[in-house]
Amino acid sequence: MRYAYLGPEGTFTEAAAAVLATSRARADAELVPCASVGAALTAVRTGAAERAVVPIESSVEGIVTATVDDLAGGGDVLIWAETRLPIEFGLLAREGTTLADVKTVGGHPQAEGQCRRWLATNLPGREWVPLSSNAEAARRVGEGDLDAALASAAAAPRYGLTVLAPDVHDRSNAMTRFVEVAPPGSLPPPTGADRTSLAAFLADDHAGALMEILTEFAVRGINLSTIQSRPTGDGLGSYFFFIDCEGHIDDARVGEAMMGVRRVCAEVRFLGSYPRCDGGRTQVRRGTSDAEFAEAAAWLARLRYGRP
Amino acid sequence: MRYAYLGPEGTFTEAAAAVLATSRARADAELVPCASVGAALTAVRTGAAERAVVPIESSVEGIVTATVDDLAGGGDVLIWAETRLPIEFGLLAREGTTLADVKTVGGHPQAEGQCRRWLATNLPGREWVPLSSNAEAARRVGEGDLDAALASAAAAPRYGLTVLAPDVHDRSNAMTRFVEVAPPGSLPPPTGADRTSLAAFLADDHAGALMEILTEFAVRGINLSTIQSRPTGDGLGSYFFFIDCEGHIDDARVGEAMMGVRRVCAEVRFLGSYPRCDGGRTQVRRGTSDAEFAEAAAWLARLRYGRP
Amino acid sequence: MRYAYLGPEGTFTEAAAAVLATSRARADAELVPCASVGAALTAVRTGAAERAVVPIESSVEGIVTATVDDLAGGGDVLIWAETRLPIEFGLLAREGTTLADVKTVGGHPQAEGQCRRWLATNLPGREWVPLSSNAEAARRVGEGDLDAALASAAAAPRYGLTVLAPDVHDRSNAMTRFVEVAPPGSLPPPTGADRTSLAAFLADDHAGALMEILTEFAVRGINLSTIQSRPTGDGLGSYFFFIDCEGHIDDARVGEAMMGVRRVCAEVRFLGSYPRCDGGRTQVRRGTSDAEFAEAAAWLARLRYGRP
Amino acid sequence: MRYAYLGPEGTFTEAAAAVLATSRARADAELVPCASVGAALTAVRTGAAERAVVPIESSVEGIVTATVDDLAGGGDVLIWAETRLPIEFGLLAREGTTLADVKTVGGHPQAEGQCRRWLATNLPGREWVPLSSNAEAARRVGEGDLDAALASAAAAPRYGLTVLAPDVHDRSNAMTRFVEVAPPGSLPPPTGADRTSLAAFLADDHAGALMEILTEFAVRGINLSTIQSRPTGDGLGSYFFFIDCEGHIDDARVGEAMMGVRRVCAEVRFLGSYPRCDGGRTQVRRGTSDAEFAEAAAWLARLRYGRP
Repeated sequence: MRYAYLGPEGTFTEAAAAVLATSRARADAELVPCASVGAALTAVRTGAAERAVVPIESSVEGIVTATVDDLAGGGDVLIWAETRLPIEFGLLAREGTTLADVKTVGGHPQAEGQCRRWLATNLPGREWVPLSSNAEAARRVGEGDLDAALASAAAAPRYGLTVLAPDVHDRSNAMTRFVEVAPPGSLPPPTGADRTSLAAFLADDHAGALMEILTEFAVRGINLSTIQSRPTGDGLGSYFFFIDCEGHIDDARVGEAMMGVRRVCAEVRFLGSYPRCDGGRTQVRRGTSDAEFAEAAAWLARLRYGRP
Repeated sequence: MRYAYLGPEGTFTEAAAAVLATSRARADAELVPCASVGAALTAVRTGAAERAVVPIESSVEGIVTATVDDLAGGGDVLIWAETRLPIEFGLLAREGTTLADVKTVGGHPQAEGQCRRWLATNLPGREWVPLSSNAEAARRVGEGDLDAALASAAAAPRYGLTVLAPDVHDRSNAMTRFVEVAPPGSLPPPTGADRTSLAAFLADDHAGALMEILTEFAVRGINLSTIQSRPTGDGLGSYFFFIDCEGHIDDARVGEAMMGVRRVCAEVRFLGSYPRCDGGRTQVRRGTSDAEFAEAAAWLARLRYGRP
Repeated sequence: MRYAYLGPEGTFTEAAAAVLATSRARADAELVPCASVGAALTAVRTGAAERAVVPIESSVEGIVTATVDDLAGGGDVLIWAETRLPIEFGLLAREGTTLADVKTVGGHPQAEGQCRRWLATNLPGREWVPLSSNAEAARRVGEGDLDAALASAAAAPRYGLTVLAPDVHDRSNAMTRFVEVAPPGSLPPPTGADRTSLAAFLADDHAGALMEILTEFAVRGINLSTIQSRPTGDGLGSYFFFIDCEGHIDDARVGEAMMGVRRVCAEVRFLGSYPRCDGGRTQVRRGTSDAEFAEAAAWLARLRYGRP
Repeated sequence: MRYAYLGPEGTFTEAAAAVLATSRARADAELVPCASVGAALTAVRTGAAERAVVPIESSVEGIVTATVDDLAGGGDVLIWAETRLPIEFGLLAREGTTLADVKTVGGHPQAEGQCRRWLATNLPGREWVPLSSNAEAARRVGEGDLDAALASAAAAPRYGLTVLAPDVHDRSNAMTRFVEVAPPGSLPPPTGADRTSLAAFLADDHAGALMEILTEFAVRGINLSTIQSRPTGDGLGSYFFFIDCEGHIDDARVGEAMMGVRRVCAEVRFLGSYPRCDGGRTQVRRGTSDAEFAEAAAWLARLRYGRP
């Protein structure tokens, strides 16, 4: 079982992939680093891997647009699971380095954003070197090209480094959510605490379309946990909506809402129904349970045969 | 084929019953007058008649509450057809009567409502005697118990009366709509220009329920032609809603809306789907045709089997 | 201080008028019976009376259409107060009459509707004589023209009758709400437990207008206690809406909602803001108090001057 | 008149700043490059510049989060104008470089997003170096630290580079919208073709808040041209909404909607009302013009004084 993930080794995504593989007791899981979100997802589409693990949302930076855009616009895949991890940065350096020795610090641009205040206070005026990943920064520190890297403390041993300063992030509760993506096929069964993800592309020039989409969910008592507009790339103001809602597509209310969204939109991409990692059970509003949908359907059938 | 109607002979309802029987080429139709709306509907429920014809809505007085309350609260029956007639009143009296002789005027309470200004101007201060029908008033005039009756001019010869004053109604374009009611059984097929009637009883104390009900129709592009609250009799402020919407319960959008209303209400009574008498075809909003519902259902089935 | 009311003496409306006059400590109140709702309201419009008291809603029969139509369509007046009374019928007869003696029973048609089961059980087959009021029936019993009347037990002494059977109404909790109507002028001050009444006339052929009107109230957190469509008389399907909402027009949220309804409707008639008789205080939703409206207005003024 | 802009020299933003300064006939405009969006906006806040020009939305990458987050979270400033430019990228390199020589490519992260397919096809597997601007990437190419840069072809001569490949963007109609930001103060006057920008922070844990916000605009007939959720940084699922709507805050309907949003949200930041650069005039729905608001306000004042 190969898990392609956004690499290189030592990233938070690798940690998420390990958590997801472990949670399924995949003793045989092989974690395969990829150079980009797109490369990890392509590995699943081509069969080079059975699973991809990519970040989808950060509490600091919002949805990960590379992930959302690829899921919405690329070949069909399905989200199968999610997990979330606290994002905690350490300042990694070679053994023996002191703060006073640090002249250059590297990492992914998002790392700088999340540690800005600490850097300004503790390493004012040092040169910041933006790199493609925090792990790449750690590698360069190991090779002597940089003095320090912002990265997960867990990456230190891998590159022969020590943690010069732990917890250098400005916000203590930063989290990132990661998803496990699989090829099309049977869905994870409903658990009562599920999430469904989709991308809804609006029909041309249809004012009020967002309101229509929201109403399809609201009228059936379905809460949305995320809604984000994203450009389709076809000009300023041309958007699709990335939506996470509570519930599973096998739930009657979610299925009917999906059909409703399908009918008012130009296109809808279903991206998966999967267990929520935050443990919160779905609140089912009066009149929207599967039993109530089934009862109403039986009643309608009687009415249509003239037997009220 | 017996048509029970709100009698006695000479009422507008008798004329409507004749129109409805003729429109179905019921050469064998037998028109049976009943003493009240309730009696006519009971005749259908007990099998004493195959059809009942009763007024349901007046352009002057609004819905006919006796009809709506009986349909909503009595045993199951189904509206099969509708027709509408212009309502024109004359003041009927015995030969030789002058306006100055008239001390008492009788008729159905709705007749008073439709002739109120004429009465105030021409017969101020006279006693108004409310009766179960205009024809009953004409009958009493014939027997000398009343001085004048508000009724159709066509009823005059039947009771040996003359038209003391024609066209005494305040508005010249008054119309009444009548429905033909049948026992439960197969429905008239959809025609593309149909109406569906229902009564929706709210769950206890649920603020915003009307908005919820309206949304169930609006989200599926269904126009309402009538919506009226009526007391359930269980205290001030306890209501049900009588609703006429466009379309047939066999239409996918109407069926789904009916199920939605069923799920948010304490009880829903389906009162029939039948061709509209005004000939207007139903406007079908983008995304709400039967074909679009069927396509969305097939798509959902594919999604649930993991084949987006 | 003259109170015109829907007479004759001995009606429930007279009792309501007495309650309303007493509640204001009008020691000098003179109760003036009128032949109809319209006559009572006209008395206020012409100055023949300072107040009119008329029924507006029955828990059994719904809104009183004569009252609502006259308020919505006649000259401007304002509802100043309301009260409600239990509606309890007795069977009134001359001293010495027994049930077996009763061959004819009279009353207002609504009285028959509210006592139908009792009559069918206790006086089956007796002739029912519909009259313009229950008090008129009592008067006729006193004169010997009728054997018994359905009327308030309180009317018995006035017509020299006794109560042959008390509490002959089918439902024990029937209530009617009455309003006290005044000429245009200053309004009763807000009390925190008020009701506002209005009539909204739709612009021509505007589908979805009811939804628009409801939204104007809902978006500002205002509950509606009554909403009823009434024909304008201009043809089947041409309606106005009679609406009772919670709150006073001096409340910021009610005032803004009224302006919103005014802008989406062809015409709006304001019928008054007055204390509720049921004592329930208005629930004020987060963000809709006068203080919150005032704060937002001050903020907007700052923004418009470029001082966010 | 100093215009701080997202530099260095040679960025698309510099071109936008020139357009905006020219459009106001600022012969004396001095364009001042800044190292980041934040630095440009800070220059206006501190008085180091009178204006800042920053990108706010790309047709490919969506809103520019650094701009939106800074406007929403930093000190008060006001958007005064906007313009938009086509975004066309070339691959810039030193004289004599061939594609085969290119091992590292740099640019702003949005540049990578807009050229992703071209890079995957023509430079697969090369290291991507995210930098604070495309011009910075060009500068580093000039200094030999990078092999190639994604940037405007116009920037090539400025850094002594040549265009190794023109038009490497994936979509040919990519546009970016830029805004001119001023210190708090009087607003540009309404033109009938305006846009208003705001940031709405939800109250804690309030389900359905987005629907509420949208309804505040919809009920007053105001179209939204952009709506984007952004994390507040306080945990997964904690968001604010960045909204562009049609119209000017001096328009009655926009002002009332702003107050409504203010009342249902924890906090609202007004970011400016300014002329739209796309020339489209605002559609004013029936019942939402300034004249209709004024008429309704006068009517309400009469009602409150008891003169309907």
